[in-house]
Amino acid sequence: MRNNYNIGAPPGTVKFTGEQKVEHTVVHTLSYNKDEMTVAKSENSDETVFVDHPGKVDWYDVRGLHDEELVNVIGTKFGIHQLIREDIVDPYQRSKFEVFDNGIFFLCKSMRFDQTERTLELEQVSFYFTDEYLISFQEDETDLFHRVRDRIVKGYGKIRQKQGDYLAFALLDTLVDDHFLLLELINEGVESLEEQLLIGNTLRIKEVSHGLRRTVHQLRKEIISFRDGLSMFKKSESEMISDDTRIFLNDLFGQVMHQVDIIDNQRELLNGIQELYNSEMSNKMNQIMKVLTIITTVFVPLSFLAGLYGMNFKHIPELEYQNGYYILLVVMAIIVLSSLWFFKKNRWL
Amino acid sequence: MRNNYNIGAPPGTVKFTGEQKVEHTVVHTLSYNKDEMTVAKSENSDETVFVDHPGKVDWYDVRGLHDEELVNVIGTKFGIHQLIREDIVDPYQRSKFEVFDNGIFFLCKSMRFDQTERTLELEQVSFYFTDEYLISFQEDETDLFHRVRDRIVKGYGKIRQKQGDYLAFALLDTLVDDHFLLLELINEGVESLEEQLLIGNTLRIKEVSHGLRRTVHQLRKEIISFRDGLSMFKKSESEMISDDTRIFLNDLFGQVMHQVDIIDNQRELLNGIQELYNSEMSNKMNQIMKVLTIITTVFVPLSFLAGLYGMNFKHIPELEYQNGYYILLVVMAIIVLSSLWFFKKNRWL
Amino acid sequence: MRNNYNIGAPPGTVKFTGEQKVEHTVVHTLSYNKDEMTVAKSENSDETVFVDHPGKVDWYDVRGLHDEELVNVIGTKFGIHQLIREDIVDPYQRSKFEVFDNGIFFLCKSMRFDQTERTLELEQVSFYFTDEYLISFQEDETDLFHRVRDRIVKGYGKIRQKQGDYLAFALLDTLVDDHFLLLELINEGVESLEEQLLIGNTLRIKEVSHGLRRTVHQLRKEIISFRDGLSMFKKSESEMISDDTRIFLNDLFGQVMHQVDIIDNQRELLNGIQELYNSEMSNKMNQIMKVLTIITTVFVPLSFLAGLYGMNFKHIPELEYQNGYYILLVVMAIIVLSSLWFFKKNRWL
Amino acid sequence: MRNNYNIGAPPGTVKFTGEQKVEHTVVHTLSYNKDEMTVAKSENSDETVFVDHPGKVDWYDVRGLHDEELVNVIGTKFGIHQLIREDIVDPYQRSKFEVFDNGIFFLCKSMRFDQTERTLELEQVSFYFTDEYLISFQEDETDLFHRVRDRIVKGYGKIRQKQGDYLAFALLDTLVDDHFLLLELINEGVESLEEQLLIGNTLRIKEVSHGLRRTVHQLRKEIISFRDGLSMFKKSESEMISDDTRIFLNDLFGQVMHQVDIIDNQRELLNGIQELYNSEMSNKMNQIMKVLTIITTVFVPLSFLAGLYGMNFKHIPELEYQNGYYILLVVMAIIVLSSLWFFKKNRWL
Amino acid sequence: MRNNYNIGAPPGTVKFTGEQKVEHTVVHTLSYNKDEMTVAKSENSDETVFVDHPGKVDWYDVRGLHDEELVNVIGTKFGIHQLIREDIVDPYQRSKFEVFDNGIFFLCKSMRFDQTERTLELEQVSFYFTDEYLISFQEDETDLFHRVRDRIVKGYGKIRQKQGDYLAFALLDTLVDDHFLLLELINEGVESLEEQLLIGNTLRIKEVSHGLRRTVHQLRKEIISFRDGLSMFKKSESEMISDDTRIFLNDLFGQVMHQVDIIDNQRELLNGIQELYNSEMSNKMNQIMKVLTIITTVFVPLSFLAGLYGMNFKHIPELEYQNGYYILLVVMAIIVLSSLWFFKKNRWL
Repeated sequence: MRNNYNIGAPPGTVKFTGEQKVEHTVVHTLSYNKDEMTVAKSENSDETVFVDHPGKVDWYDVRGLHDEELVNVIGTKFGIHQLIREDIVDPYQRSKFEVFDNGIFFLCKSMRFDQTERTLELEQVSFYFTDEYLISFQEDETDLFHRVRDRIVKGYGKIRQKQGDYLAFALLDTLVDDHFLLLELINEGVESLEEQLLIGNTLRIKEVSHGLRRTVHQLRKEIISFRDGLSMFKKSESEMISDDTRIFLNDLFGQVMHQVDIIDNQRELLNGIQELYNSEMSNKMNQIMKVLTIITTVFVPLSFLAGLYGMNFKHIPELEYQNGYYILLVVMAIIVLSSLWFFKKNRWL
Repeated sequence: MRNNYNIGAPPGTVKFTGEQKVEHTVVHTLSYNKDEMTVAKSENSDETVFVDHPGKVDWYDVRGLHDEELVNVIGTKFGIHQLIREDIVDPYQRSKFEVFDNGIFFLCKSMRFDQTERTLELEQVSFYFTDEYLISFQEDETDLFHRVRDRIVKGYGKIRQKQGDYLAFALLDTLVDDHFLLLELINEGVESLEEQLLIGNTLRIKEVSHGLRRTVHQLRKEIISFRDGLSMFKKSESEMISDDTRIFLNDLFGQVMHQVDIIDNQRELLNGIQELYNSEMSNKMNQIMKVLTIITTVFVPLSFLAGLYGMNFKHIPELEYQNGYYILLVVMAIIVLSSLWFFKKNRWL
Repeated sequence: MRNNYNIGAPPGTVKFTGEQKVEHTVVHTLSYNKDEMTVAKSENSDETVFVDHPGKVDWYDVRGLHDEELVNVIGTKFGIHQLIREDIVDPYQRSKFEVFDNGIFFLCKSMRFDQTERTLELEQVSFYFTDEYLISFQEDETDLFHRVRDRIVKGYGKIRQKQGDYLAFALLDTLVDDHFLLLELINEGVESLEEQLLIGNTLRIKEVSHGLRRTVHQLRKEIISFRDGLSMFKKSESEMISDDTRIFLNDLFGQVMHQVDIIDNQRELLNGIQELYNSEMSNKMNQIMKVLTIITTVFVPLSFLAGLYGMNFKHIPELEYQNGYYILLVVMAIIVLSSLWFFKKNRWL
Repeated sequence: MRNNYNIGAPPGTVKFTGEQKVEHTVVHTLSYNKDEMTVAKSENSDETVFVDHPGKVDWYDVRGLHDEELVNVIGTKFGIHQLIREDIVDPYQRSKFEVFDNGIFFLCKSMRFDQTERTLELEQVSFYFTDEYLISFQEDETDLFHRVRDRIVKGYGKIRQKQGDYLAFALLDTLVDDHFLLLELINEGVESLEEQLLIGNTLRIKEVSHGLRRTVHQLRKEIISFRDGLSMFKKSESEMISDDTRIFLNDLFGQVMHQVDIIDNQRELLNGIQELYNSEMSNKMNQIMKVLTIITTVFVPLSFLAGLYGMNFKHIPELEYQNGYYILLVVMAIIVLSSLWFFKKNRWL
Repeated sequence: MRNNYNIGAPPGTVKFTGEQKVEHTVVHTLSYNKDEMTVAKSENSDETVFVDHPGKVDWYDVRGLHDEELVNVIGTKFGIHQLIREDIVDPYQRSKFEVFDNGIFFLCKSMRFDQTERTLELEQVSFYFTDEYLISFQEDETDLFHRVRDRIVKGYGKIRQKQGDYLAFALLDTLVDDHFLLLELINEGVESLEEQLLIGNTLRIKEVSHGLRRTVHQLRKEIISFRDGLSMFKKSESEMISDDTRIFLNDLFGQVMHQVDIIDNQRELLNGIQELYNSEMSNKMNQIMKVLTIITTVFVPLSFLAGLYGMNFKHIPELEYQNGYYILLVVMAIIVLSSLWFFKKNRWL
């Protein structure tokens, strides 16, 4: 997955270590204030794309991280620390929040559940912002934030009246909403698994349950990491974050806490399902063994008796009796009945 | 369960995401002070319902959350923050406590155990209050707080002499009392399960135990979340909460702590039952295997001997002996007895 | 167990929720200082029993909690907060420590192990004290504190020279000593269980082990709760507790910490025993299966051969051989020997 | 083990509760400074043994704790608090550190692994010291601290130039070194166990593993308790502890932390071994069951066929065929081969 | 592994306790500043090797720890505390960070995964540094830090412009990069294990999984210990660490945190694999038992019937019927079919 490690290079070396997902890096620019809004898109980006529109919030949405040079160009223009530039192009990071004098950096993952492959797909997303602008970086060209973009373009909500810090919040809010959708999908999986198990359909439970556990575990790791980053964000004392935005961040943090609760719950449910499955299996085993034992216990003594009177000894007195055969049949019936009584007594039947 | 997510809408959008449980939102108003008390009920509510009675505590009990407009009307009248309004109508929340300049918000769950379905039913309850009024929101129209209402109407206890903060406490106290009833029900379930198991009745234990674990786990999650909210409540430094109420809150907090203890205990008990059940199952298996093995070990050699002398070889000297059959019977008896001695020695009998 | 819940009543309602264990509430009074000591006992108690002896420490030992009125009388006389009175008569509480201006409240459990029923019996004990007096409340009439009473009556130790806070410590010290006796009993149970298991006697291990786990778990919960209460006691800054008593409390706290260590150890031992038991069971199973398999593997092929030559085909050449029978016996011996060699190789014998 | 509990006696009663390991309490005295050193030994000790040598550090090494009177004599001479005297003669304590105005108290365990019994042997050791003297108490007469004694007598290292606090450190250092030897012994046990298991020798693994777990668990408890005491020691602000000694204590603390790491590692290894053992057992079971099933599956149908043609019906046409027997043999061979093919397909062979 | 313990010697005794890995201790010296750089190598080192080059950063790279005298020479020259010298030559330590007035000490492990032996190889590495010089100590002569050396020699990055504290960071950064490579190797192992398991190839899974768990556990322990040391490093307030280096240390700390996440994830994955394996095994067992039971259940009754009519009673009427044999065959077919129907119903087929 990881193309190569940034190993041996001095710290702060801007080197893309991921898998290239787009051909050209595309930059979407959206500048807005309460009254106006302009949109732009550029495929061959250089410094000139990143124009400052005074009195407006500028959102530069960079899609595709392989163009290390472009990241350096942006970094130089906006004064982004060397280590942050390195982080932006290394898509295997823990969620991170850092405050600098000239900007705030937030890095996290966008998550999507691939239904057919039943795997969690991660895309690294990072923001560098002040109250005046926000640069977002993402790996792929799918528009993760189209809902926010819509709200800005159509002027829904209060976003047009707010600054870059609120924009950052709005983008994070979108990602948190996505988590909820993910959790819902997983929930469905867990519930269908439980249902299957309770109606006794154990086929493929093993693989599905293993897959779900994996996903839940991975998701938990990512959400915890997200929560840690967000916690630092909301507690940060930077002046670039307005009090109003802080209230929204607090609310968002509460939602993420709730998500951690939900996912811990799902983990417990999966554990319960695993145990139920194990019980089911050992139950089935017991059932099978019972049948085996009952059959054996009933027929083995009978077969012995049949064998006994199938012997060719010259002198076996019973064989000479006129009713020998009938007497034996009665004896056998008694054996069968007493065996069945024994099984009944031990609750095997 | 969840009708739809409030996704894509700007944060603070008041949108009901639950399942509509009542046809019309009903508002019960109860205004009281030491001397007087008035009651009102309104089905088609608008702003005029929420009259302020100076010198009295006003309790507006709103039942039904689907009427988003009404929530906005209330919000505007009492100056409730946009995000809180959103929380009120989204019944999938973690317990929450927040202090604003003009009011205090507390959100939690009311829990009821559905005996027939053996599931935990949750109803979201939230309060917005100052010392002068309290607005309670609940999903369904069942009166969750009839005990408090009774005390106010009949003038029991000190509630008529106290302010809105004490009313909030009294309502929470009712919910905590309900938890105790729930825990008692679960306790009965656990004890009956254990009894069943100890008398060896393993039928349906698996399903019942799985159901109880689920419930206990869910309940624990909710009570922990409740405790976290209550902890913030009791530690809050808002001037709207009187010192006297704080003492009651401390006591209530102690009770919730006790409930967490009880439920952790129940969890341990259920784990113990699970282990006992597993032992029981493997014990039974051993028992079954023993029977199978004893039967096989005793009869298979005998059958072999019978088969041996059932062969049709021209010359088998033993068959010619006058007492061959009797000798063989003695040999067989010896085999049976020595097998039984072996089983005895190995404590299989 | 719990008679009824104090539900619906306003908080602070003094209502006995336990099981009445004595017919009449009895109050034993013991007043002492360095030089003098008086003893009294009253069955039909009212306010007049609680006389203050200036210059002496008064210990009012109230046995039996069902007399709610008496508790109210005491409460009024000594100015005990309404919520504390409620706690005193509700014997299903977590350990609790609270400081008021006019007294200190401590609530905990006295524990006794019922050897025949193998259950832990709890009795709630609470103290309300200042440096001048101490009121102890217990459910039953057995004298839990006869050792302290003896020391006061006979003038052993320093207790006669100390105040009410030291008396409180001395009573708690007695309860902690009782814990040690309990732990010793449990320890004996655990060790005897382990011994039984190691000599291979698995009979009744399951039930005994389950019972011990339950007890250990319950005991742990109570001791942890006791420790929490004691921790608040020793850290409390109330002036009613002398520096000297604090040293003794610290020492007591160390002992309770040690008890938690011991009980955690016992829990681990029981887990170890459980695992040993499981190994033992699966070992036995393997043993049984081995015997079954060996018998089957040895005799089934032989029986087949015997059956083969028991067939009635017109033409089976082997049957005509003069030594056919002896040859077959040799072949059978070879089969047996090679089976045994196979078992030997696989370490089954 | 524990002779009797100190129960019922007032707190601070000096009563030996252990097992008497020496006949007479012996006191070894060692007084030293940079230049001089004197040694003494006394069997019938009274106050006169505890002479103060001004300008020297006096180390009184008391071996044997049953002489309660002597402990009181020492306590009175050096002003040791009543509760500390009680601790010294009660060898069932958690590690403890306490600072008084006139001295410092440290209590811990010396541990030895009894190779033949495979048990951990504990001996309680306690120190009471100032910068001018140190009294050490131990249960048995083996010289636990001969390495320190040697260094003082022979003048190795800096110990002769230091005060009582450094002596205390040096004694603790000896105990910590002993822990390392213990851990090494346990490590050998664990590694040999793992080796045995990997070469498939499961004999006695169960008992040895259970014993090791017990020891590891007990050792962990003791080292954690030791660490807690040492932590308080190193953080103590008493002026009797010099800055120089503090550096050594910090280093010692680091070593104990490392020991906790090691022992946690061993615990994990033992868990891993347990799991490996369980897998091994269930593997063996599978192996055994496979053999049983293969034998049964191959021979039971053949036996049936043989039985079929052993019947005595008047008219069974197959029996009349000239080649009936050979045809049957071929059919049987086909059955065997197809069974084997089935086993092959299912990877049972 | 450990040659001998430093036991009995006074604390601070410099004694090599490891395994000697090089014949002669070799010292590589590298002195550099922005403009110049000199390299030296010495095999028979004494004090003269450690020349101070004013205005340059001197990096003395000591490879081989057995030369206790040399360590003392270095220690005396640079004023290294006695206990630190002891740590340097005892390669069985927890990661450690300590600040002295004249230098900073950091000790940790370099880790390498031996692919053939499937074990983790540790080498202890320690640094003593100020802003002007850095002495690194390692056990073996492999150049662990060739990447840093290259950057200095070739003048890559900013390292030539920085002080000793940055050099220390750069060396730690190299070690952290190595951890990533290790984690990648382990990841490959875990993924291949999972794949094997999912395609049903359970051969050797047990051993490989046990080995991986061991490694993961050991690695976790080391990385946690490394993290603890690094945490103290980055929080240290020593003036020898520049603000600029602190930013880099923070970044490095974030990476180590991420590594802990990754390794916890791997641990969970291995647990999941273990469970999957257990399910697989018990599944296989069930499969085997089913076959056994089906075969037995079908043929044992048939064999009994065949035996019955193989008896030699004088009078068995069925044997005389003309179509007796055919009737019996039909009965047998019915038995077989109804057994198969039973298995079908129970989902055994």
